[in-house]
Amino acid sequence: MPATMKALRKTQAGKGLQIETTKVPSIGPSDVLVRVKASSICGTDLHIYGWDRWSQGRIKPPVTLGHEFCGVVEKIGDEVTAIKPGDFVSAEMHLNCGHCHQCRLGQAHICQNLKIIGIDLDGAFAEFVKIPATNIWKLDPAIPEHYGAILDPLGNAVHTVLAGAIAGQTALVTGCGPIGLMSIAVAKACGSSTVFATETNEHRRKLAKEMGADTVLNPLSEDPVQKILQATNGTGVDVLLEMSGQPAAIQQGFKALRAGGRASLLGIPTENVPLDLVQDVIFKGATVQGIYGRRMYETWVQMTALLKAGRVHLEPLFGERVELENFESAFAKLQNGLAGKILMYPNGIQK
Amino acid sequence: MPATMKALRKTQAGKGLQIETTKVPSIGPSDVLVRVKASSICGTDLHIYGWDRWSQGRIKPPVTLGHEFCGVVEKIGDEVTAIKPGDFVSAEMHLNCGHCHQCRLGQAHICQNLKIIGIDLDGAFAEFVKIPATNIWKLDPAIPEHYGAILDPLGNAVHTVLAGAIAGQTALVTGCGPIGLMSIAVAKACGSSTVFATETNEHRRKLAKEMGADTVLNPLSEDPVQKILQATNGTGVDVLLEMSGQPAAIQQGFKALRAGGRASLLGIPTENVPLDLVQDVIFKGATVQGIYGRRMYETWVQMTALLKAGRVHLEPLFGERVELENFESAFAKLQNGLAGKILMYPNGIQK
Amino acid sequence: MPATMKALRKTQAGKGLQIETTKVPSIGPSDVLVRVKASSICGTDLHIYGWDRWSQGRIKPPVTLGHEFCGVVEKIGDEVTAIKPGDFVSAEMHLNCGHCHQCRLGQAHICQNLKIIGIDLDGAFAEFVKIPATNIWKLDPAIPEHYGAILDPLGNAVHTVLAGAIAGQTALVTGCGPIGLMSIAVAKACGSSTVFATETNEHRRKLAKEMGADTVLNPLSEDPVQKILQATNGTGVDVLLEMSGQPAAIQQGFKALRAGGRASLLGIPTENVPLDLVQDVIFKGATVQGIYGRRMYETWVQMTALLKAGRVHLEPLFGERVELENFESAFAKLQNGLAGKILMYPNGIQK
Amino acid sequence: MPATMKALRKTQAGKGLQIETTKVPSIGPSDVLVRVKASSICGTDLHIYGWDRWSQGRIKPPVTLGHEFCGVVEKIGDEVTAIKPGDFVSAEMHLNCGHCHQCRLGQAHICQNLKIIGIDLDGAFAEFVKIPATNIWKLDPAIPEHYGAILDPLGNAVHTVLAGAIAGQTALVTGCGPIGLMSIAVAKACGSSTVFATETNEHRRKLAKEMGADTVLNPLSEDPVQKILQATNGTGVDVLLEMSGQPAAIQQGFKALRAGGRASLLGIPTENVPLDLVQDVIFKGATVQGIYGRRMYETWVQMTALLKAGRVHLEPLFGERVELENFESAFAKLQNGLAGKILMYPNGIQK
Repeated sequence: MPATMKALRKTQAGKGLQIETTKVPSIGPSDVLVRVKASSICGTDLHIYGWDRWSQGRIKPPVTLGHEFCGVVEKIGDEVTAIKPGDFVSAEMHLNCGHCHQCRLGQAHICQNLKIIGIDLDGAFAEFVKIPATNIWKLDPAIPEHYGAILDPLGNAVHTVLAGAIAGQTALVTGCGPIGLMSIAVAKACGSSTVFATETNEHRRKLAKEMGADTVLNPLSEDPVQKILQATNGTGVDVLLEMSGQPAAIQQGFKALRAGGRASLLGIPTENVPLDLVQDVIFKGATVQGIYGRRMYETWVQMTALLKAGRVHLEPLFGERVELENFESAFAKLQNGLAGKILMYPNGIQK
Repeated sequence: MPATMKALRKTQAGKGLQIETTKVPSIGPSDVLVRVKASSICGTDLHIYGWDRWSQGRIKPPVTLGHEFCGVVEKIGDEVTAIKPGDFVSAEMHLNCGHCHQCRLGQAHICQNLKIIGIDLDGAFAEFVKIPATNIWKLDPAIPEHYGAILDPLGNAVHTVLAGAIAGQTALVTGCGPIGLMSIAVAKACGSSTVFATETNEHRRKLAKEMGADTVLNPLSEDPVQKILQATNGTGVDVLLEMSGQPAAIQQGFKALRAGGRASLLGIPTENVPLDLVQDVIFKGATVQGIYGRRMYETWVQMTALLKAGRVHLEPLFGERVELENFESAFAKLQNGLAGKILMYPNGIQK
Repeated sequence: MPATMKALRKTQAGKGLQIETTKVPSIGPSDVLVRVKASSICGTDLHIYGWDRWSQGRIKPPVTLGHEFCGVVEKIGDEVTAIKPGDFVSAEMHLNCGHCHQCRLGQAHICQNLKIIGIDLDGAFAEFVKIPATNIWKLDPAIPEHYGAILDPLGNAVHTVLAGAIAGQTALVTGCGPIGLMSIAVAKACGSSTVFATETNEHRRKLAKEMGADTVLNPLSEDPVQKILQATNGTGVDVLLEMSGQPAAIQQGFKALRAGGRASLLGIPTENVPLDLVQDVIFKGATVQGIYGRRMYETWVQMTALLKAGRVHLEPLFGERVELENFESAFAKLQNGLAGKILMYPNGIQK
Repeated sequence: MPATMKALRKTQAGKGLQIETTKVPSIGPSDVLVRVKASSICGTDLHIYGWDRWSQGRIKPPVTLGHEFCGVVEKIGDEVTAIKPGDFVSAEMHLNCGHCHQCRLGQAHICQNLKIIGIDLDGAFAEFVKIPATNIWKLDPAIPEHYGAILDPLGNAVHTVLAGAIAGQTALVTGCGPIGLMSIAVAKACGSSTVFATETNEHRRKLAKEMGADTVLNPLSEDPVQKILQATNGTGVDVLLEMSGQPAAIQQGFKALRAGGRASLLGIPTENVPLDLVQDVIFKGATVQGIYGRRMYETWVQMTALLKAGRVHLEPLFGERVELENFESAFAKLQNGLAGKILMYPNGIQK
């Protein structure tokens, strides 16, 4: 084992990130050290790069970023029994406390004392990352490595789609960023009868079609609510999967939702959203669900079962693959919003 | 059978109501004619009396008001088999179409073609009222007549409280009008461990205590969110039962709701409510339910089982009892919001 | 309209069926008369043909058989508004009373006063069949006619599969008769990760593969419980879909079910089944569901949405197509259990 | 801290138990040492005392018994943060592995690698007991000590009653041993409209009344199925809570269950039970649930919320209180089945 390693870090308050040589983490008795094979850049990483207001309040430099990844177990702590060196793994990077009300109720994903590896603790944009054994998720070798690197956002999609009935249901995905696109594939794999998608960006609309959407609408040039009501005999969709965080899309989504339908909200608006609670929620008898993270670990079970069975095809999502050192061009491309998921390889691209 | 009867009607566009002599309704093969024993005035009746904007758009005079009542079956149509003259009954006054998507899914209470007796069709502020047999609800004689007259709003309360888990849960009732007060009693009867209630009106706060609320807060003189967080170790309540329709109360309710909690919204805001979707719904992983009417007829089964078993005590709710002719004083008192449920007796007060 | 028609009937107690000329049914104000395009023979029809003990207790000759069919509306009653002549339809042949406890709770499929068209009332093995308008199910023209003829058993399969979570779940189908085979296709369409199937008959095992089963086992030559435990790391399957009614298969199914799993039982055993309640249900924390009929009408909504979307492929199931007059050969073939679904055409084979 | 302590142990294969002086357990970094205030004897302890077949296969002497208790934290391991010395606590004595399929799905109570303190590891019939910190359950001081000693069986009752809807539901409790009796109180506290109970023992029938049962039946002198059907208009009960493990009671329970009802089975039959699956489960569309242990830790949350709120009164259940040394008389009385819950005090009776 080397003593030091390469890592992509926020070393001080302010814009940008730095490649540094830092110590390989030392692990405790319940921890696991993972050699990172592939990692992936999340929208949150872009916010931290740009040092927006949220980042300024949350991030305490220096810290290594990166919370989407897969790798191979390098070393295990003394009390770890269910994992062994050589295992192909990913991990849930949200660490829950285990003793708050939510943890006791099986809602660890909304633990009152949540910490996130790659945000609050050193993450996976490095040759090695330290993870508590409880949070390690073993992967079947049948799951491709590049899929293994994006289980965090795929888990968001699976959590959202499977938060209620989907088989035989019509669905609307508002917003076709990576998680919206994944949601389309997951919804179809799980029996959704018709998936509508809305997206203003042309490239993403094309991807939405490739992922399996039945009807893709551009809200800038057509009225998605009217189109959807027409296509559903005036009834509206059974399920709204809100992935955009855009107030206008959220409002359209609620208008397109049928009475008695389900609205599962994952996208993060940056301001208060004025909702017509009476017409869109109360008189409709709608169910609105806030979706955060991934259920620990029900979502992981569902997601990896679907992947292992080859039920979800994600190829169109992948963009470039770069060495960790080339992060600047990767982050720049993602700022434009057209790059899909860019994979970074802290230990070199091998596959 | 007499040919004519006394009825309290909106006879023309404009403020006010009129006592008229009108024809006793003739019934079709699937209908039932009920002699009204006791009826009760709803907030909606006040809106129609006052001829507000909603009323102007919805009400087509002439029409007899009244959708909260109980009575005795006088006559049945030729094809009616499950009901007989002399039965003590109330009724679900929402008429569903039976063939829309929602009706087919067992969500008749949010039917796309809903009509309401007492609003769209002649109602129960009259000596007799005509109801389709499917909508008649037979009452056990163990249920007191004055309880039978308010099953419509009690059903709103039961629908809201039992829209999710309540046993062993902490709950917050925002707004202690009649349905809020009923919700307190229902929640306690169904095992809620602690019921908090907020209400600005002193008289209603006193009633909230009588109905069984554990802690009653006045949002004008204390911060209910802080008090509730303190009382729950910073966690918040498991369940929000929103009964006020007031934006401030709705926002406080969401702030007092725990992560992973349920917010069931019945109160009707008169304007858009700016919601902090990110903090109050999405990051919280909350479930928000719009509640409308009563489930047909699961709510009726639950409600009458609780009443028959003597589990829900509603006495503090009742105010005056008046003959139909004295409606003016009854409506005037209700405008002040302090009168509780006023019962009107179209066939005279006997009991 | 002709006054008489051809029908396949049980005219008297005893074995066999007869083609008769009988009156075209006259319809009441809430009924619909359907011209039958295609009908299908159910296992129940075989029991009635054979005049087994159950048939002797239930069937009151003369009666026209047939409860699986589709057709075109010929005539509607005076009060029927949502259906019109020319509509392509099938129907739920279970008639519920509307007023018993179960009907009031939205469980009409287990109504206390259920009657079945084609068993208790004249059915669809005839040129025309009379159905109450509430029970008519309009079909999208995108659904092929031969699929429309088997919605009754397909509904059994959809009801069973969707009685709990299936997406990302492993499932075991015990018994690959027509409904078992349909269940395989439905489970895969709705995201089941791995479907195991057991079946003693070689031809049906081949069909199970064609319908999409991942692993098909012959319990006569291999131990299905051991194979399934091996394939699931000793855990067992998440879901058991019991379609055989065979005590040995039921017992194997429970042994192969994981702790915390769901067992949905549709197959009808002809004798008491000794269950190891402690090991197979109680210590396992299992959920066992009795499945009967189709949910009215949630199952119809789900099923036709899946079919319209082209998500469920049933072609391998279909056997011969015969004119109604050739029923004897059709029934004879089905007795052998190898014929799949045989379609009968009371108005002639056109397509 | 003393080095040794008094404990009630099975020291060797064979009948009986022994009081021994043994070492005070030494704790690891994640453990807690609790000074036992009150413990309670379970039916399982009687089986181990009697050395029945199950005990011979499971128990590896020497081992200290006792899994129902409460106490005060004496000492905590180095990594324990959420618990401190002096805390009033009980504990979930089932230890789950954390990494099997069930643990990952939030079903830790049916973990594939479950170990039980007091059966597989040294238990609470001793002055001190060692428990992993995760399994400690802090108790509000409002909960009486003698209630704190029986949370294990009370949790069984709460788990069973709240495994489905209970508010406004009729319920049948078959078997009025301690857990059956607790279930009556819990069901009433959570809004059950009518609780029927069956029990052959006269003393227990009297207790069932005291716990709140509405109707208590003696199956030796009356037909409980007929009585219940009569009392429910021929419909049957909504919920069966099976607490006896007796085949006859199980069969009666299923016959008394309404179509669409829920049967939650906790009692442990000692032999296979022939079930009429067709009439009692399949045609009924019933849901049968195996119930084991307590949900970790949802049941604990619900149970302690109900107790803290004073909603469940258990006083009639308690029998004698004895010092640990007087275990022989306590076990002897329990063998007769009439003693209710006997509390044993390893550190002396103080209260």
